[in-house]
Amino acid sequence: MPKISEERKTERREQILAGARRCFAEHGYEGATVIRLERDIGLSRGAIFNYFPSKEDLFLELSYRDNARLVRLWMEKGWEATLREIATEDPAWLGVFLEIGRKLRTDPDFRKRHGARSQDELAPPLVEHVLAEQERGELRHDQPAERVAGFISLVANGLAVQIALGEPIRDVDALIEFVRTAVEPGAFRASSETA
Amino acid sequence: MPKISEERKTERREQILAGARRCFAEHGYEGATVIRLERDIGLSRGAIFNYFPSKEDLFLELSYRDNARLVRLWMEKGWEATLREIATEDPAWLGVFLEIGRKLRTDPDFRKRHGARSQDELAPPLVEHVLAEQERGELRHDQPAERVAGFISLVANGLAVQIALGEPIRDVDALIEFVRTAVEPGAFRASSETA
Repeated sequence: MPKISEERKTERREQILAGARRCFAEHGYEGATVIRLERDIGLSRGAIFNYFPSKEDLFLELSYRDNARLVRLWMEKGWEATLREIATEDPAWLGVFLEIGRKLRTDPDFRKRHGARSQDELAPPLVEHVLAEQERGELRHDQPAERVAGFISLVANGLAVQIALGEPIRDVDALIEFVRTAVEPGAFRASSETA
Repeated sequence: MPKISEERKTERREQILAGARRCFAEHGYEGATVIRLERDIGLSRGAIFNYFPSKEDLFLELSYRDNARLVRLWMEKGWEATLREIATEDPAWLGVFLEIGRKLRTDPDFRKRHGARSQDELAPPLVEHVLAEQERGELRHDQPAERVAGFISLVANGLAVQIALGEPIRDVDALIEFVRTAVEPGAFRASSETA
């Protein structure tokens, strides 16, 4: 086999991931067979699995990249930008995350691999970011940073599932306004005063 | 065939629905084959489909009943009780709703049948209920009742999807506290004052 440059390898990886994403979105996780992956990626199974040893690895890499992109957006442009970004996602792609629910619940190894990298690499800097916002008085501080991040993440999950189920929300601004009231310090002060 | 009393018919319907719910939860929507439905319900396909003409009808009835129960709980005990109830649901059963995502997005007839009854029968009294709470000063009134109900429903969906994906939230009280801040009038007043 001829040697492939690092640059060419990176290109190949990106080609494979882009094709796999389209394939998963169109056919679902189970429906993305090796034959369909070969066709949508435009490479043979040998070439594909040289880069990613299994369909599971392909999906986990795509899932990690999505998480990483959303966490980066949150840290750079704020959680509002992240919710807006999710609202524009492809419903069919978001739907793939729903389809792996059974596998996540019933396959402990898959579950561990799915959560591990996001937990280890993405969660700590995000919680740090929220903590810094709390310290600057930009977010309520009567709840631990993990809980504030957890609440916004739960809303993000609610938004994603509605889009994936074909119920896009009509007004993202109104959603953001509710979340802002829930997490901003002004709201916290008021609820203390009236308590 | 012997005549069956109305009472016996109701019993049968309940037996069929309870068995179908177990079957869907254990095997998923696609995996709930006629053979498995017969086994989990304890009746022949003829007897089952005498009451429900298709698997789709069985699922839609179960789904409608879940919605009706949660909306009733919301109206009788408040949205907090509804969120607490969802937090105790069987992850496998909630997972079935995720598995029908593709069908909901790609099968317009199923989509219409799935939404129609809940929209027509459950949404109007719930919005009326929220409106009355707004008028009594118990919920913020700077947003239409539909939006307030929509935000709480989105949080409920976020909670349900996390449970279905095997990520139960650790502290429902904290979640309720965030939502309360978002929807109570005190919080609204404060965010107006600071604006």
